[in-house]
Amino acid sequence: MVIPVRLGPRSYTIVVEPGALATVGERLRALGTGSRVALVSDPSIRSLYGKTVAESLERSGFAVTGLDVPEGEAAKTLAVAERCWSALLAAGFDRTSTVVALGGGAVGDVAGFVAGTYMRGVSFVQVPTTVLAQVDASIGGKTAINHPEAKNLIGVFHQPRLVLVDPLTARTLPEREFRSGLAEIVKHGIVLDADYFARLERDALPLLARDPSVLERVIAGSCRLKADVVERDEREAELRMVLNYGHTIGHALEAVTHYARFTHGEADSLGIAAEARLARRLGLASAETVARQERLLQALGLPVRLPPLEADAVLAALSHDKKARDGRVPFVLAPEIGTFRIVEDVTADDIRAVLAELSD
Amino acid sequence: MVIPVRLGPRSYTIVVEPGALATVGERLRALGTGSRVALVSDPSIRSLYGKTVAESLERSGFAVTGLDVPEGEAAKTLAVAERCWSALLAAGFDRTSTVVALGGGAVGDVAGFVAGTYMRGVSFVQVPTTVLAQVDASIGGKTAINHPEAKNLIGVFHQPRLVLVDPLTARTLPEREFRSGLAEIVKHGIVLDADYFARLERDALPLLARDPSVLERVIAGSCRLKADVVERDEREAELRMVLNYGHTIGHALEAVTHYARFTHGEADSLGIAAEARLARRLGLASAETVARQERLLQALGLPVRLPPLEADAVLAALSHDKKARDGRVPFVLAPEIGTFRIVEDVTADDIRAVLAELSD
Repeated sequence: MVIPVRLGPRSYTIVVEPGALATVGERLRALGTGSRVALVSDPSIRSLYGKTVAESLERSGFAVTGLDVPEGEAAKTLAVAERCWSALLAAGFDRTSTVVALGGGAVGDVAGFVAGTYMRGVSFVQVPTTVLAQVDASIGGKTAINHPEAKNLIGVFHQPRLVLVDPLTARTLPEREFRSGLAEIVKHGIVLDADYFARLERDALPLLARDPSVLERVIAGSCRLKADVVERDEREAELRMVLNYGHTIGHALEAVTHYARFTHGEADSLGIAAEARLARRLGLASAETVARQERLLQALGLPVRLPPLEADAVLAALSHDKKARDGRVPFVLAPEIGTFRIVEDVTADDIRAVLAELSD
Repeated sequence: MVIPVRLGPRSYTIVVEPGALATVGERLRALGTGSRVALVSDPSIRSLYGKTVAESLERSGFAVTGLDVPEGEAAKTLAVAERCWSALLAAGFDRTSTVVALGGGAVGDVAGFVAGTYMRGVSFVQVPTTVLAQVDASIGGKTAINHPEAKNLIGVFHQPRLVLVDPLTARTLPEREFRSGLAEIVKHGIVLDADYFARLERDALPLLARDPSVLERVIAGSCRLKADVVERDEREAELRMVLNYGHTIGHALEAVTHYARFTHGEADSLGIAAEARLARRLGLASAETVARQERLLQALGLPVRLPPLEADAVLAALSHDKKARDGRVPFVLAPEIGTFRIVEDVTADDIRAVLAELSD
């Protein structure tokens, strides 16, 4: 399935297709870029898929420079970006060259940041291999590295020229990582598409079993929902904020647990559970709307109950949210499945109350 | 004089006006940004103009955080950018905050890079205080820091929201720095506007004497020419390359002399002299077209003769030019005053020949 992302001169396509990895060379060739390609990956992903991707590029006449970055968030540092810039310079990369990110969200974030800043921006291709990266991080041009005190603080918007998704890579993911990616999929259904959400409810079991045709349909559907939002709000001015559903409290939970206790998807699942209750507390959502969200998350093996946490620490972390405007954090809430509303006046007491409910 | 730069959602105005520095607060207020402003400057510029700008911002209700960076190119390092990001985070800057660059081109380059990458881009205002920055670097959104082995290697396009030029600041510049800025002005005339060039020929003496009304007219005229190019080619796809006239060889001369022997403007003056002769050598330009360029540069106190240099080193530096595409560097040449042509097939022998002519 080919999903267009229409952004004027920055338009591109997302290709969701079993076996897509072996087609990267011919697809990049069709874009008319220069001959040099940097293949950025981490050692485990490289050992799984590096050969397939590099051979495809070389078959199409590209000179491939491999760049290894550390696994996970450790890749998203200034030191790693600096090493990548130097490697590109040493390998003679110019403005026509291309950076290809092969891996999960962290690889895509740092590779995209490097591509977006090397010579003020070179071509960038995303080949995401985790569900999380496939349905969310790889689409929309958000790139970033971390500051020691704030995740994703330093970054640029730099749209890829192409996103290549092989849904079968989801079958090789460790169970916990696979389930984590499903949190983003559920989020897309909750705030954007009631029919998609209902289908997820019906397909929960084959999805968890990683049935190939269900995987392909669910991932492609989620990519389409994300692409639709990005098309209407490329720079996260307003609408795109909808994609932060669950992430506002989710990010704060990640921060107070030092990114060690929960995966990103687990934190988002908890954030969705908390923000669903916030909507109920503010009189926006029914108890059944809250319950459907929790039931689906639970059915997909995702957490919806909090361990004991310091509410003050969570509130402090929230105040550092990048969405804060002059100190206030807007929340995206879901009055019904398939709808959303941005709420500016959530109080600290409201947040304390839902955190307490979830810790019971 | 108010010069619009029409770039759709990224449009802004350049204000060229004696006393403009004291109006930054009210003008920024009119843009509706958040309350926090970082004023990035170097110690000497801050001592000259920092108080005027900070007081104007504070009068309009902004909370100002001063950020000092080293003077000149020493500001354009990753370490300085990192220190700025940390300072913004510590001062509670969010997406609604603004970075103001007060100073020359280097201050604008690093402050713009920081503004373009902090939280994926915050508002940026240029208050250039050198002629070079006023007519060139501050307009068009090119930002960068240096890699130890390549100038301006790491950067982003990040348009300012406002450019405020007080032409009277040119009156306080050291003589050598003032003259260096005139090289960019001459360049604009050569490749873009024969009438403007002819007026520069007539006004050379009052310009060198820094007559206030001539300064204002010349600087505003040059800003308008640059803005016109940026409007038609924001991302330097093709047309904007015209602004690299003289800079291709100029940059190489700076690189081989380790950025220590010539100012940027002096190197560009030498680059213009060399590229003028390149056009003549390739049969594109008349001897008189070459001579007019040299005469005006000389009248403005700029160098047009080279000291002995290793031609091989210059050629090696040229091969690292960011404009190189798969190894070949395109040249912008001027067949007549007020016109330009992009020439792809300049040989190493042609370059050696003009370097030899200029060293005689």
